[in-house]
Amino acid sequence: MSTPPVTVETINPKVLKCEYAVRGEIVTQAQRLQEELKAQPGSHPFDEILYCNIGNPQSLGQQPITFFREVLALCDHPSILDRSETQGLFSADAIERAWKILDQIPGRATGAYSHSQGVKGLRDSIAAGIAARDGFPADPNDIFLTDGASPAVHMMMQLLIRSEKDGILCPIPQYPLYSASIALHGGTLVPYYLDEATGWGLEVSELKKQLEAAKSKGITVRALVVINPGNPTGQVLAEDNQRAIVEFCKKENLVLLADEVYQENVYVADKSFHSFKKVSRSMGYGEEDISLISFQSVSKGYYGECGKRGGYMEVTGFSADVREQIYKVASVNLCSNISGQILASLVMNPPKVGDESYESYSAEKDGILSSLARRAQTLEDAFNSLEGVTCNKAEGAMYLFPRLHLPRKAIEAAEAAKTAPDAFYARRLLEATGVVVVPGSGFGQVPGTWHIRCTILPQEDKIPAIVSRLTAFHQAFMAEFHD
Amino acid sequence: MSTPPVTVETINPKVLKCEYAVRGEIVTQAQRLQEELKAQPGSHPFDEILYCNIGNPQSLGQQPITFFREVLALCDHPSILDRSETQGLFSADAIERAWKILDQIPGRATGAYSHSQGVKGLRDSIAAGIAARDGFPADPNDIFLTDGASPAVHMMMQLLIRSEKDGILCPIPQYPLYSASIALHGGTLVPYYLDEATGWGLEVSELKKQLEAAKSKGITVRALVVINPGNPTGQVLAEDNQRAIVEFCKKENLVLLADEVYQENVYVADKSFHSFKKVSRSMGYGEEDISLISFQSVSKGYYGECGKRGGYMEVTGFSADVREQIYKVASVNLCSNISGQILASLVMNPPKVGDESYESYSAEKDGILSSLARRAQTLEDAFNSLEGVTCNKAEGAMYLFPRLHLPRKAIEAAEAAKTAPDAFYARRLLEATGVVVVPGSGFGQVPGTWHIRCTILPQEDKIPAIVSRLTAFHQAFMAEFHD
Repeated sequence: MSTPPVTVETINPKVLKCEYAVRGEIVTQAQRLQEELKAQPGSHPFDEILYCNIGNPQSLGQQPITFFREVLALCDHPSILDRSETQGLFSADAIERAWKILDQIPGRATGAYSHSQGVKGLRDSIAAGIAARDGFPADPNDIFLTDGASPAVHMMMQLLIRSEKDGILCPIPQYPLYSASIALHGGTLVPYYLDEATGWGLEVSELKKQLEAAKSKGITVRALVVINPGNPTGQVLAEDNQRAIVEFCKKENLVLLADEVYQENVYVADKSFHSFKKVSRSMGYGEEDISLISFQSVSKGYYGECGKRGGYMEVTGFSADVREQIYKVASVNLCSNISGQILASLVMNPPKVGDESYESYSAEKDGILSSLARRAQTLEDAFNSLEGVTCNKAEGAMYLFPRLHLPRKAIEAAEAAKTAPDAFYARRLLEATGVVVVPGSGFGQVPGTWHIRCTILPQEDKIPAIVSRLTAFHQAFMAEFHD
Repeated sequence: MSTPPVTVETINPKVLKCEYAVRGEIVTQAQRLQEELKAQPGSHPFDEILYCNIGNPQSLGQQPITFFREVLALCDHPSILDRSETQGLFSADAIERAWKILDQIPGRATGAYSHSQGVKGLRDSIAAGIAARDGFPADPNDIFLTDGASPAVHMMMQLLIRSEKDGILCPIPQYPLYSASIALHGGTLVPYYLDEATGWGLEVSELKKQLEAAKSKGITVRALVVINPGNPTGQVLAEDNQRAIVEFCKKENLVLLADEVYQENVYVADKSFHSFKKVSRSMGYGEEDISLISFQSVSKGYYGECGKRGGYMEVTGFSADVREQIYKVASVNLCSNISGQILASLVMNPPKVGDESYESYSAEKDGILSSLARRAQTLEDAFNSLEGVTCNKAEGAMYLFPRLHLPRKAIEAAEAAKTAPDAFYARRLLEATGVVVVPGSGFGQVPGTWHIRCTILPQEDKIPAIVSRLTAFHQAFMAEFHD
């Protein structure tokens, strides 16, 4: 084959342009090191790779919530539901819940394609869960179940972006799903900067400034992405800040794309999560006033069921004919996976006081969330104790995003190696310690500043080793490149 | 909100252009009728809706394969694996297989994101299954696990299509995933017609003709889609025909996109399924000679696990740097759902002679496939017995695509109702009988010809009623519109 039909020169240039650092070069290198360690133990100065690059809790030993898995197993194999042995193996409320869910699925067929928005009965449960969370009604017909939040984001970008003249306001730093999806769909990312000095504050004045700048370049800004709690930045927005954001979207006629997948992950006593739907309804704004999408996922929270690929978007404030178009795009992929749909209904309706599983469920949930809070604090303290490193609090989500004030010689060494200084630091960290973090340049940052994103997910017994290895590495790095 | 931020006039026009008839207007109408029947039994001249519009076997009562579901349930809730009650509830080989699969998943974490191509150990199993099927080696690094075949097709269209000047050769009639995906990605569908007179024959002379016609319009044709066994047309390609197709792709430097999701669904003794990979390898063509993607799904076959959203594509004959780009796009969505991945490994490696479940597994499989063959024959005969209807054999897949030779007056009535004549027929059929079929116009057809697609999936005890209702309806329809 002298000229293959497809080369990197002849593929869709939007694909080439797309970047996704969370699974980028550094992860590939980590996997290579892991294989080397396996083939030749002792070949590196560490005995395991510690993946702090991705919000993937169960890959690091977090156990699934028992009740959720009981229900999933029973729905996968309903023919054991009325066997006597099942009573001994599964909790009574899991059996009851499985029956209830099966009755919500037409023909109890967990192996059938569902309605393209998801099983109606499961959407009813999710809407009830949203209403209980917010204190405002939710409509099951507004729910679109998806294989995780990522496909939902793609679906909305596909709908909104017509050309590179369409812009989407995104936080910087941002979770690179947004930049990747905007690139794949040929739009323009309009950045707004979070203010590191005020704990990654989101200022409406900055939104206005960037919106005007984009307009002056001929960009039609169509939507505002807000990630709350923040990824990679971990801040939890205050309610009055959220009100100002809603007001801004209403005034500027923007769709508000609210990434709320970390809604269960808040670690500080003085903050709590408020959905943008609740905030806008409490301002008196309804369907006619604001176009709002809320993204939720089963991958995050205390459940961390990443591999199940479940999630939903709640679509409010769109006309019937636009919703028909969203439905059509959903229908081309038929439906999301039913186990993920079931799990989404479970996380929005966990066991309640009085249910047989309630005590053990609560213990599992509280154990995970309180441990995450401790890990966040320990790692934050560790980063802040390092020379030239400053780290905001992880109020929520699963990440720390410390700033690296790197010596000039380190920056020159990175330039010589043709890499960004934070990528240079992350690679050195990996090679010295086996700890995998993502360079800040993968998320965007104020030019001339450098960061890394480090998850708080390694199990608690690993944290001391991470802290000591990180500290030793950093001291050696700073000594090596001292001015 | 005087001007909402998003209207049908301001969404991406590619979304507007996309059509997907399998879940289109007629299905919405069927759902409405079903609700009316539920609210007011006896309100229509039938007591249930019979969905013959979509390849969704379990929605119509087909039971899942027990062994597959046992393994899925155990992998969802591994903590019961070593409990004594489990021995009584699950077959020994399902327990053994679950352990084996869990050992293939890093940390036994079925709730973790996997490698973006899918769990390596599961890809090893799938590659072994492909090699056993074809008699040629398969590489686990060529496998990309996906949430069903549809996302895999989208991924390749996204890679291949740069603008409306890029064309994809697709059969007409075609499964509308292809037209929808090409529209969403802004490319041009280059049609080639299957020859109804020769049992939906695929002629290379027709491919050449359409390729030249497209070239003369300035279209760069990048790939050829072949659906084998055919959807909606049900033909199974002969091996020498497949060789000619491979030769054509090689000569014209086209990627061969082989939709092989019905590989287990062949109902005639004189035909069998050959993968395009096997055919090209048996011609002596390797990685350097032909760029080939094979799509497979857990939704079809005898298993019909549509709701699990599992599938894979086997990617061969692409350079390392192009494969890196495919990997990058896969990584933006992180991974496909793990249950679907497990199921894909199971369908490619079902129980073998000597395994405890083998007898019952074989009985379930053979029962489903032989029943499908009988249903295909009965429905084919029924269609062929109708005045003005001709129907090719369903050699494979799950559909019949009978041609309707409609009276002039029926065509005029359709025109008056501003609808295609086959859509007019399908709507009348639904209203009179509750049977849902998809108009041929949703798949494409030779202009001036009219068809419907009818699945062979209703359970066998429903078939006589379908045949008698269809026959009575058709006679009345023909009488009403007689010239």
